[in-house]
Amino acid sequence: MTGNLVSALTPAHLRFLEGLFPGEGLVTDPAAMAVYGADSSRRSAMPWAVVRPKGEEQIVELLKWADAERVPLVPRSRGTGMSGGAVPAFGGIVVSCLWMNRVLDVDADDFAAEVEPGVVTAEFQALVQKHRLFYPPDPASIKMSSLGGNVATCAGGMRAVKYGVTREYVLGVRAVLPGGRIVNAGGRTHKNVVGLDLTRLFTGSCGTLGVFTKLTLKLLPLPESSATVLAAFPSLHDCLAGARGVFRAGILPTAMEFLDAKACWAISQIREVPWPKDTTQAVLVLKVDGGRETMAAELSRLERALAPSGPLCLFQGLGPEEEEPLWELRRLVSPAGFHLGVDKLGEDVAVPRGKTAQAVDGFQAIGREFDTHVVCYGHLGDGNTHVNIFYDAKDPDQAARAVKCKEAVFRLTLSLGGTLSGEHGTGITKGPYVSWQLGENERAVMAGIKNVFDPNGILNPGKGWS
Amino acid sequence: MTGNLVSALTPAHLRFLEGLFPGEGLVTDPAAMAVYGADSSRRSAMPWAVVRPKGEEQIVELLKWADAERVPLVPRSRGTGMSGGAVPAFGGIVVSCLWMNRVLDVDADDFAAEVEPGVVTAEFQALVQKHRLFYPPDPASIKMSSLGGNVATCAGGMRAVKYGVTREYVLGVRAVLPGGRIVNAGGRTHKNVVGLDLTRLFTGSCGTLGVFTKLTLKLLPLPESSATVLAAFPSLHDCLAGARGVFRAGILPTAMEFLDAKACWAISQIREVPWPKDTTQAVLVLKVDGGRETMAAELSRLERALAPSGPLCLFQGLGPEEEEPLWELRRLVSPAGFHLGVDKLGEDVAVPRGKTAQAVDGFQAIGREFDTHVVCYGHLGDGNTHVNIFYDAKDPDQAARAVKCKEAVFRLTLSLGGTLSGEHGTGITKGPYVSWQLGENERAVMAGIKNVFDPNGILNPGKGWS
Repeated sequence: MTGNLVSALTPAHLRFLEGLFPGEGLVTDPAAMAVYGADSSRRSAMPWAVVRPKGEEQIVELLKWADAERVPLVPRSRGTGMSGGAVPAFGGIVVSCLWMNRVLDVDADDFAAEVEPGVVTAEFQALVQKHRLFYPPDPASIKMSSLGGNVATCAGGMRAVKYGVTREYVLGVRAVLPGGRIVNAGGRTHKNVVGLDLTRLFTGSCGTLGVFTKLTLKLLPLPESSATVLAAFPSLHDCLAGARGVFRAGILPTAMEFLDAKACWAISQIREVPWPKDTTQAVLVLKVDGGRETMAAELSRLERALAPSGPLCLFQGLGPEEEEPLWELRRLVSPAGFHLGVDKLGEDVAVPRGKTAQAVDGFQAIGREFDTHVVCYGHLGDGNTHVNIFYDAKDPDQAARAVKCKEAVFRLTLSLGGTLSGEHGTGITKGPYVSWQLGENERAVMAGIKNVFDPNGILNPGKGWS
Repeated sequence: MTGNLVSALTPAHLRFLEGLFPGEGLVTDPAAMAVYGADSSRRSAMPWAVVRPKGEEQIVELLKWADAERVPLVPRSRGTGMSGGAVPAFGGIVVSCLWMNRVLDVDADDFAAEVEPGVVTAEFQALVQKHRLFYPPDPASIKMSSLGGNVATCAGGMRAVKYGVTREYVLGVRAVLPGGRIVNAGGRTHKNVVGLDLTRLFTGSCGTLGVFTKLTLKLLPLPESSATVLAAFPSLHDCLAGARGVFRAGILPTAMEFLDAKACWAISQIREVPWPKDTTQAVLVLKVDGGRETMAAELSRLERALAPSGPLCLFQGLGPEEEEPLWELRRLVSPAGFHLGVDKLGEDVAVPRGKTAQAVDGFQAIGREFDTHVVCYGHLGDGNTHVNIFYDAKDPDQAARAVKCKEAVFRLTLSLGGTLSGEHGTGITKGPYVSWQLGENERAVMAGIKNVFDPNGILNPGKGWS
């Protein structure tokens, strides 16, 4: 995969980079570079150099040069990825998009915005909200992550049940390909079927096909209000019956999250919880949104839909202020989990929605089998379960069991018709397992497509699927 | 583009086909074949032969053989396409998927279904509705068109405003590639980010990348109820102000359609209309859906949002029975238009949503310039306007003006940042104009991708984008 690429930068290479990226545009000091070599997967590798382009012209020149010189490049923005997709594990120059962070345009009539890749997602959401517009994708990293990274990974989030994932909000991608070719995929219209769908091909391609310079995003009208219900159940199966009841009533919630017994317990260790600690085995959190005057009725509908599944207790929140404490409990699961172990393997498998009970039961059994703490929670509404395996990396036996546990989780997921990643991507942490899921023909086609965009393999080498 | 392909079938070819498709599986009688050579674009070409596979095994053998023999194949189901995408205009064997029309699975817990490509969309919708499930895409051809064709063209429809287009409901595609390679793209999970997004690459690829044998589709819970508002306005600009008012109120309607002055007039020629005929210059039709008990409140919200734009009159429908007469008026625009001319060029351009007024004003001016009847209507909610140019093909002068008018419509659309096709695809009718929209780099990448799937160019030749 890196056969024809250089294995280090020469003095001539560095001189070229100094010329193209004057001043602080080029970083070569190891102490300053280290942060550009890590991401939220806790993996890291030292970049050969870091460049910080201010605009597309520099990226075009960089990609012409790097392609001719066979120098690997690893595009990156905020480094909040969970699978090491932005880690230069196989060497190369990190191309930081943090200086390309302008919102170029927000149009309340087009319901579209144009942004550079380094814009922080939450800041963008807050900005469009001022225009009474709504950008739905909400990965957990939203306050730190960038729109470029979100598109590169096709980031998901809680609101996917009703609104879909990042893919559904990318109208156009402008990218520079190796050799400096500029490609404009898609456009600014909400519907567009001229040509092959390059826009979605770029989405989730993890920086392997091109370096994004502009994204055109779809916006929606901002819902007037929202409401939340949190219900506790004596078993996971009752919780899932509750979820089924909601769907059967014809309700498409904005978000539908669950916490398993261990997750509930972990949260109760760091915060006063409103549910009965001794009998609660699962918690369901639901959000709906819409017009202000219909929210009370929507809450009653939710409550009626949940009643037959016998919740132990049920809490309602009408409007953001009342909802926030309920969602805060859900969000605490991530930090709370560290009460079970100082290190974590955070997986994000997804199964066909109806298989969630079977999957979570199985994941918990796998945890017992390997004597490892397995906490399951997440996006019940779309079958995307976060399986966190807690352990102590200093104990080699625990570490080995954690990896075995993870692999058993992957095998069960695939046996249920699931996928190894619902939203994190495969990066380097799941790279070795991609062939468990994708067959030879699929991988050959993906390698062929990669070759069309990047014939010399300079973009994010080692992060492919072949 | 067809350089290395055969230009006719040999007796040996026909013997092979007779063996692989016994009995009525092979059609060679010109009278019987003619219908397989036309589609709703009113273009047609005689197939060299028509084959009707009953299952994937036959398709695998066919694609092995055709690739080796360089025989072009044109996949097809119901032939309801509007741009000639399924017309074998450059020769070849038509592969009819009509015998592959089984619904393999509908799962109310997975919110997923598996179907063969020949299933009729409306029949599928009715079937899943029995399980209180909802398949939102609703192209106008829904009663006749197939799911395979809908995926091949990424069909749109009225409900795209809230629910998106076919693309958003394709979870997985199983396809046979030239040479007989089977590719499984995506899967059955609602979230999936393992590998490049081949699923969406197949969606809208117009039969140029593979022959679909199975589609996995995403379903939603069936909304409990719906409601409709129809409002008439004294000008197109007031109508668009009304639409803006709805969005500004935070309402995301299921559908938001408009009719321009000529469309309103044409409908009034074949049906009693409820709006004042002398003052109405535009009509807006809106649908919302949700819980039964909140629909009355949603109607009031819509009415309040529309009031400032000064509608001449406003009609409400609560629930399908009351709504149907209002939607019937909207649907009549297509047949009614033929009062203006016996032949039609039916375009489906889309512009950035806020540019709709400028676009429609411009299209109408173009109509006057070329002394041609131009009727504009359609999907205001996503900026996808149907521009129907009516003329008499028997009059060469009228026919020439109609083409010039169409080309002026295309030029204006592109100058406004729009796309030549929002939902019909380019097929053969828009093929010659693709390079007006897509640049050299985009077309080169698309040609490269095509080459990965179909190196000998046997699939639907001449329908590409290069």
